Amino acid sequence: MSDWPDIAGRNLPDGGHVLPVRVYYEDTDFSGAVYHANYLKFCERARSDMLRISGIHHAQLHGAGAEGRMGFVVRRMECDFLKPAHIDDLLDVETHMLEASGARLVLKQTVKLGEDVIFSANVTLALVDGRGVPKRLPNDLLERLKR
Amino acid sequence: MSDWPDIAGRNLPDGGHVLPVRVYYEDTDFSGAVYHANYLKFCERARSDMLRISGIHHAQLHGAGAEGRMGFVVRRMECDFLKPAHIDDLLDVETHMLEASGARLVLKQTVKLGEDVIFSANVTLALVDGRGVPKRLPNDLLERLKR
Amino acid sequence: MSDWPDIAGRNLPDGGHVLPVRVYYEDTDFSGAVYHANYLKFCERARSDMLRISGIHHAQLHGAGAEGRMGFVVRRMECDFLKPAHIDDLLDVETHMLEASGARLVLKQTVKLGEDVIFSANVTLALVDGRGVPKRLPNDLLERLKR
Amino acid sequence: MSDWPDIAGRNLPDGGHVLPVRVYYEDTDFSGAVYHANYLKFCERARSDMLRISGIHHAQLHGAGAEGRMGFVVRRMECDFLKPAHIDDLLDVETHMLEASGARLVLKQTVKLGEDVIFSANVTLALVDGRGVPKRLPNDLLERLKR
Repeated sequence: MSDWPDIAGRNLPDGGHVLPVRVYYEDTDFSGAVYHANYLKFCERARSDMLRISGIHHAQLHGAGAEGRMGFVVRRMECDFLKPAHIDDLLDVETHMLEASGARLVLKQTVKLGEDVIFSANVTLALVDGRGVPKRLPNDLLERLKR
Repeated sequence: MSDWPDIAGRNLPDGGHVLPVRVYYEDTDFSGAVYHANYLKFCERARSDMLRISGIHHAQLHGAGAEGRMGFVVRRMECDFLKPAHIDDLLDVETHMLEASGARLVLKQTVKLGEDVIFSANVTLALVDGRGVPKRLPNDLLERLKR
Repeated sequence: MSDWPDIAGRNLPDGGHVLPVRVYYEDTDFSGAVYHANYLKFCERARSDMLRISGIHHAQLHGAGAEGRMGFVVRRMECDFLKPAHIDDLLDVETHMLEASGARLVLKQTVKLGEDVIFSANVTLALVDGRGVPKRLPNDLLERLKR
Repeated sequence: MSDWPDIAGRNLPDGGHVLPVRVYYEDTDFSGAVYHANYLKFCERARSDMLRISGIHHAQLHGAGAEGRMGFVVRRMECDFLKPAHIDDLLDVETHMLEASGARLVLKQTVKLGEDVIFSANVTLALVDGRGVPKRLPNDLLERLKR
């Protein structure tokens, strides 16, 4: 199949990243709205694609590079569920980096329906090695993230 | 945000439809591959977007139109899980209609990784009203599907 | 089938509630551990079963009672992901009510593997009517919760 | 926490196995019923617990035993979605082995609401090694399954 230019979202002029996410059957619950835990999935997709656009791939991190096996894990999320979303809605997931230091990334992620912010989260990630021990963010990874 | 032209996939020259699906953390399990039930989610996304491109929206079907509340339900799926997919893979979900008659749609759906077919399913859908009773496919819906 | 006495967990002597949750394939991701968003699902199951044991059922809340349609929605969650869990693990989800007033419930929920706390959350719930407008917690519901 | 005697379901007098599954928010979609792909999750939970009761654990299969790394993968499922289930429903997932030979297990799984069969599937599993190559079912595994 031909390429899909926007499949990993787009970088924003302010240094952030935006990923479009469609609401499907699987995302909703019997109340008629999106099930609350699924916003965390949408945010994880956006983080993965922000990394991807920066040239950082999970499969590579988890493979055995010069640094050994690595991966990001979520340490803390503060989540505000502000308004409901519904089937067929097209959402924008915006991600901005607030802090990158030591073994830690702090991000602000919002889910928007048009101009309305319907979900907002502060997310703390840690980089860990294959045994779950925190690792300092390698310089080349930091540089890629800051571009 | 600006528009995302390919967000609902594309129609194929042979009358089918193709939707790109990225494999994220949420889709995998500890074996390292995509969790088997998630292929059914990928197929449902593709069916929804094939309908969407044809101008048919779940929210409208479920709203009270002239025909009353309606929705598609899956009656039967024959699924072959042929090869594994992994994190970061970009899959193509192809959908072709085999039959549309009475209250029933029969579709062939395949999930491809490059040229490899990794999942294949025959799917029978029924159109039902708000009480779950099968309804004949309305003519305008049939015409839209056959274009 | 005969009854399943513990299917909704048990009340704890301190007024809390505990629900056992088994980790299955669907709960894990390719890192080998439980996918982070799934802890929110485990907590929601525990809240539902704590309500169930108190005689409060979602289907009834959502049905049209004397008070009209109602349901709980999650407004805020502060989540700490402390340690990983793995396939086949048997987890305990403990729920304690911190506050019940106005339209708001505040709960503390922890997920334990043996004596280790592996996930912890402060959860704010709101009771809303069919249009999403907050409703005061009815007295009989408050009394049931406080027993 | 004290033990949960029925957490892995029970063996049936006819050689089958039954697992109770509660329908939670996460299992439903905006149509009001259980999302179709989730029946596959329910069936996978039941298969895991049937194996568990027989003394076979995924973590052990995936660990490096005398036979090397192994795991079951789903090769084919023929699924009939017969009736809807709803929030709060308590379902029984019944599993019977039809065939165990070579590298292959064939199972019949049904999901019941009271006496009504609401979902039915024929499931073909294969035992594979760490590279995905089919392996003959070891004799001790076969004997455990047949007890």
